[in-house]
Parts: sequence; C-alpha cells; structure tokens
Amino acid sequence: MAANSIQEQLMKGYDEKHDYDGLSGERVASRLAELSAIGRTIENGSNRPGFSLEEKQAKEKVSAWMRQAGLAVYQDGAGNIFGRLSGKSDYLPSIVSGSHVDSVPNGGHFDGPLGVLSALEVVEAWKDTGYQPEKPFEVVIFSDEEGARFNGGFNGSEGMLGLGNMEEKLLLRDALGMSFEEVLHDVGLSVAGYEKAKRNLDEIEMFVEVHIEQGKRLEKENLPCGIVTGIAGPCWLDFTFDGKAGHAGNTPMNDRHDALVAASEFILEINKLPRQISESAVATVGKLDVKPNGVNVIPGKVTLSVDIRDIYKETRDELVERVIALGSVIAKKHDVLVGSVENMRVNPVPIKEEIQLAFEKSFRAKGIRPYKLPSGAGHDAMIVGGELPIAMLFVQSKDGISHNPDEWSDLNDCVQSIHVLKHFIESLQPHG
Amino acid sequence: MAANSIQEQLMKGYDEKHDYDGLSGERVASRLAELSAIGRTIENGSNRPGFSLEEKQAKEKVSAWMRQAGLAVYQDGAGNIFGRLSGKSDYLPSIVSGSHVDSVPNGGHFDGPLGVLSALEVVEAWKDTGYQPEKPFEVVIFSDEEGARFNGGFNGSEGMLGLGNMEEKLLLRDALGMSFEEVLHDVGLSVAGYEKAKRNLDEIEMFVEVHIEQGKRLEKENLPCGIVTGIAGPCWLDFTFDGKAGHAGNTPMNDRHDALVAASEFILEINKLPRQISESAVATVGKLDVKPNGVNVIPGKVTLSVDIRDIYKETRDELVERVIALGSVIAKKHDVLVGSVENMRVNPVPIKEEIQLAFEKSFRAKGIRPYKLPSGAGHDAMIVGGELPIAMLFVQSKDGISHNPDEWSDLNDCVQSIHVLKHFIESLQPHG
Repeated sequence: MAANSIQEQLMKGYDEKHDYDGLSGERVASRLAELSAIGRTIENGSNRPGFSLEEKQAKEKVSAWMRQAGLAVYQDGAGNIFGRLSGKSDYLPSIVSGSHVDSVPNGGHFDGPLGVLSALEVVEAWKDTGYQPEKPFEVVIFSDEEGARFNGGFNGSEGMLGLGNMEEKLLLRDALGMSFEEVLHDVGLSVAGYEKAKRNLDEIEMFVEVHIEQGKRLEKENLPCGIVTGIAGPCWLDFTFDGKAGHAGNTPMNDRHDALVAASEFILEINKLPRQISESAVATVGKLDVKPNGVNVIPGKVTLSVDIRDIYKETRDELVERVIALGSVIAKKHDVLVGSVENMRVNPVPIKEEIQLAFEKSFRAKGIRPYKLPSGAGHDAMIVGGELPIAMLFVQSKDGISHNPDEWSDLNDCVQSIHVLKHFIESLQPHG
Repeated sequence: MAANSIQEQLMKGYDEKHDYDGLSGERVASRLAELSAIGRTIENGSNRPGFSLEEKQAKEKVSAWMRQAGLAVYQDGAGNIFGRLSGKSDYLPSIVSGSHVDSVPNGGHFDGPLGVLSALEVVEAWKDTGYQPEKPFEVVIFSDEEGARFNGGFNGSEGMLGLGNMEEKLLLRDALGMSFEEVLHDVGLSVAGYEKAKRNLDEIEMFVEVHIEQGKRLEKENLPCGIVTGIAGPCWLDFTFDGKAGHAGNTPMNDRHDALVAASEFILEINKLPRQISESAVATVGKLDVKPNGVNVIPGKVTLSVDIRDIYKETRDELVERVIALGSVIAKKHDVLVGSVENMRVNPVPIKEEIQLAFEKSFRAKGIRPYKLPSGAGHDAMIVGGELPIAMLFVQSKDGISHNPDEWSDLNDCVQSIHVLKHFIESLQPHG
C-alpha cells in the first residue's frame, strides 16, 4: 500500500460526523500516511529502528507539524522531541501526551505514530477553536521505544527519567556491531547529552498515552477505545528439563525419562494457573526446543520459555512462584531434572483509580461505554509510570494484529479516541 | 580406542570358563576389534555406510575368515555374502544366520558385526570339535542394513527376498548426490545383478539373527541374552496443530488458540495410551517444532512426529487409530485445527511360539534364565521374517547405548549368547 492508498483506505468508510470541535479525520489520516512512507518496506510495513535516520526523519516531520500548530519544539539529549503549548497558568506542571515513531523491523503504521498524532491533533483542535488550557500541554515523541536496535527498548523515556544503566547501554551492540554510542552519534546525539536528558519531574503532572490495543478485546466489545487499568510487568523464565534420550522402539514406556512428556504436563498446567490467581494475569510458553529432536529418539532435553504477566506486582510474583514450584513437582513426577533462569522481571504499573474514573467521565461525555482492560505489553507509559502519574487509552486493533504490516485501526475509532483524549485533558484543567 | 585396545578391553574381565565346545572368546574379541578398525572415526566410532568401500573391505575380511573355516563363499548381486557349510543331508533347506557389517555414521562396533561373527564362531566351534550338521548352515552378511547412505535400509535382505521397489531405489540420491546405481557400481555391483539376487526361498528353513539389544532390559535383568518375541513394526505419523499466534501479554487466557497447549495435552495423553493396549507397545513424540517460537508470542503452529510400535499388527494399528482420534478430540477441546500424515507403516513380525520354546530349551541347557523381550528396532530379521521363519537372540547392551561409539557388550555375554545360538541350531537338526 502506497502512502496515499493508506490515506484512502483510512478515509474509506470514515464518518465525517466525527469531525467536530476542531478535529479532522482527514488530517489524522494524511499524517499517519505520511509517516508510514518513511522506512516503508517492500511488504508495505514500517522499518524505523530506534536512533535510525528513518526515525529521525519521522521526528523531523512531526516537529514541523508541531511548529505549524504553534508549539515550541525542543529535543533533549536522548533525542526525545517535546512540542510545548503554554498554559494560561504556565507555571503549573504540564500534561504530557504522546508516544513514539520508531518501529520494529517490518512493523505496522499505528503502533507509536497514532499516540503522537493524537496528542498533536488535540492541539490542532484547540488552535481551531481558540482554546488555551490552563496548564501547559506537551506533545512528546519518545526515542527508541521498540528497542529493535539493541533488543532493549524504552531508551527515550528512560533518558527523560534518568533511568537505565549507562554502563550496560555502552556495552550494547546492534546487528551490524555498532555500539550505543556510535548509534547515538549517527543521529547527532551523544552519550554526554543523553545523560543530561533527565527532566525535573516536578514540571510534569501526568503522562497520557494513546496506543493501539494490540489485542482483540475492544474488537470483541465493538468499542472504539478502552481505559487501560494498568501495564503488566513481564517476568521471563527459561526452564530446562533434563531427561534421558533413548531409542523410541527399545525403551519400554515404564523405563523412560522423557523430557518432552514432563515439559508437556508443565505447559498444560501453566495454562490453568493464571485464572486461579488474577483475572488480568497471563502466562505463555512461546518458545520450546527439543533435543535431539529425532522422530525415533526419546527427547533427552527440552528448553522452554515462560512469559508471565499481570498488572499487579503481588499476583504477578505469586504466579512466578507457582510456576517455578510447578516445574519441580512435575519434574519429580516424571523422574527428570529441571532448572530455571530468570531473564527479566519488570514491575507492573497499575493506573490510579481516580484517573480511570476521570477517563470514564470522558467516555460517557462522548457517548462511549467505558470499558476497562489491562495492557499486557510494555509501553513508554510503563517507564514513565514508575515515577509519575500516567493514563492510557487503547484504540481498537483489527484482529489484534501488531508488529506486522497488517496492523490496522479504523479511522472512526482513532478520531473518537482523540475526542476522548481531548475531553480527558480538558477535564484535568482547573476549570475543566 | 585402537583396534588392539578394543580387544584388550573385551578380554579384560573375560572368564575363560566360557571357552568350551570349541568356542573361543579371544577369537571373537580379536575379530570384533579387526572389523572395528575399518572405517574408524576420530571419535573411535565405526563409519561403514552401506555399499561403501569400508563395508566392502569388512565383507572381504569376514569372507577370508569364512574360507579359512572351510565355508564355500559366494556373493549375490545385492552384495550379500553367504558362507555355506554343507550338511550331512545337503539337499535339506539351510539354516541361515548372520547380520550386517555396515554402520551408521560414527556408530558402534557391535551392531551388526556381533551377529555375523556369532554365526561364524558356531562354524569355528564345529570345525574344532569335528561336528557336521545334518542341514546345511549358511553364515550371511547382509548389505546396507542401516541405510545410512540413502536414509532407507535393509537393501541387502530386500535384495535376497526380491522385495523393495527398484523404481524408487533408482530415484535415491546420497548426500553427495550419487544415485543408487552409481553407488552399486562403485563397489562392483550393478542394478541388473541386484535384481537377480532373489533366492529360491525353498532353500532356506529359517533365519536366525544375533544382535545387541540396544535397550536396557537385559542389563536390568542381569542376563547375558534374551529371546526376542517379535520385531515391532513402526508407524510414523506427523501431526500439525494450527492455532492462532498472538501477543503473550495482550491475549487473555480465555481467548487463546494456543497450538502448543493443545500439543502438550496430546503428548501427555499419548504417553498413557500404549500400556492400555499392549505390554510391548510404545509411542513416542520425539520431534516437535513450534512456530513462531518467540518468548512473547502465543504459539500459532506446532508440528510433531509420533512413532508408534508394537510386535503385533492388531495392537499397533489399534494404537495408531487411538492416537489419531486423540488428536481430533484434543484439537476440538482447545479450539485449534489438527491434521496428520502417515509417513511409514511397516508390519510387525511376531516370532513363532515353537521357535521361542526351542530357544527356551537352549537357554536352560546353558544355565541361563530364559527371558523374553520384544525388539523395538527394525533388523534384517524383520525383512526376512515377512517371508520365512525367523529367530532372534538379543545380547545385553551396556546402558542401552547404540548407534554411538560408546556402544558396548561384555565379551562374557557375547560368548554365552553364541553358546545358546550353537545349541539352538544343533537342536534344529533331525538328530539334534
């Protein structure tokens, strides 16, 4: 799909009744399409890795739109772009909203850009209707959210918060062997500058992120958008089951130490655990490898990964403990050995009740049934939420497809979500 | 281990009390060691693929020993070597015994050679003691049992029986791109000759094969050898479970179509099935591949193989049907699709009751508790057994290791097994 055909596709079936209060579906569509043209892949996906020239070009394009909309634009040392609209009481802390414009390799056109353009569209609407908020408002583009470059991610939001371990970052190498420092340098940034990116957090009241759901709940509920209740923190564990390889024909059933049979019971039981602990918890065995993996050889070794998430730390950690204990019980039962390694444990970020309530009012004001859902994936809001109040709005994703050229959101849903975002931000003003 | 050190290792702990009735443990050890030196790998394994110069060299070495022992040696068009000892009543059908001298790549030194040398040692013993059987006796070396060359196998025994599809064989190519015809040509054979290898089966009364167990039952029972009750026929099925890939964080547990969870329940249930059907049945999922196999992606597709065996056709086929039905039930339960393809179904070869009984007598005569066990692996006896009566004797394998340089059998066990073989063959004579 060429840029103009993405715009056409977005506009097809768009109901102009959503164009009110200064919002323009056509503007949103044309800007999504223009960004989608930067780093376009042969499969019509987006390829804009963090700290690439493509990401930089996308940032520059949005910066130009920000300036046209009357925002004061500046870039911090981590490459994050802020477009600031002064408030009537400009000494008050800002409401900040946005997302990112980098992508995974051959990713979609909505994950990131929609959040940036939604915040910008609120400013466009205000400009159109002559509204100035009491509090300053900032549109943000965070650098390198996806982490496609270094298999990490959140390098922009971490920079703004002064988080992340620079010693570790300096050891990173991308697929071409380039270091974090070299990569920064290529886009006109520096390690020294990155380390100065940390903002005074007293300047910010709240961060609000609009993002596609990357799941199918809203599609099932037939809703344009939903209120995120929290961002699940993932814990990644690797398990190894060590049994004994043997001839599939010459080893009786009662004399086997089949690593795959043990792993299979483990997977089946893991699948039952989350709902016993929390409604929002999930656990997934996504990766599994068998050795020696021969048709007529009893599996001697199985390695597998478990991805465990919940939006509450207590239940997420309880689930992790239950999974580890389960591994031992099942290994014993099948007379094999088991070992596990924890590769990642990120704290979940719950979203405050009062913020969810404020969002509910905005949903009702826009005639949309408030529907709450957790975010299973990490976002810049997860990083920011460790230090500051956050709010998050999910937009319906077609078939839940994401990180893929087929990623899609209906423009009617996008614009309705921006109406909710605008109402919510206005409701945060002293006279809102 | 050098050839002489294999001999030393075999002789270490050998009890010369087993050297009676003309049998010599030292001769067996030295011959095993001499054969092990042909195609020796750097890991001290054997590398003598079927129809290779190494296999040919091993056949020539054994042929020379056959001639020394007074046998009339001839090679058929399939490269099978027969060493014939005339019987007192030479018009009677022969008793044939032997195995093969080819190996898998980097295989062991007992799988094949022990069966050939056992049959030859019986002749040596008879020569020593001046015994001539009533019936003619033939020592056989079948070509290419392992099928390492063309991923097939049993090309020698099939040639003797006039089995196998020559059109299919002519399409075969080895890893170097050589055809079956070219490979035959390299060792002085031809397709035309191969097709004339079929023997008049009225000339043969029975085929007896001595082979290492390649399992751990005899080791557990602390027995030198055991009576094979039948050769299991394998059926190989490939299953594909088609679910839906999705984000591990954003897909609730109750909205998943996880192909790996379905496959896991399938594997766990398959493991319980054989013992419900037959004591000798086995079923193994040895090979499994997950797609896309990412830590944070719900598995969309799982392909796996099931290897199903029993020595009785009825129960083996019943088990196959049960496994296929199980796949459908489990796929339905987990809301995924399942498909299966049958890649192989070889008929099991049960061994006649009266032959097992005759073997029992020989065991008792030699002071060995008769112990019966199925053969899970295929052997030349499986091919021959489709057309002729067969008998098979398993020799204890250390740790059940096979197709590996560590394959080992104790010389005391080998020689005791040859005593049983000799007694059994003598018992088949009219005045035995």
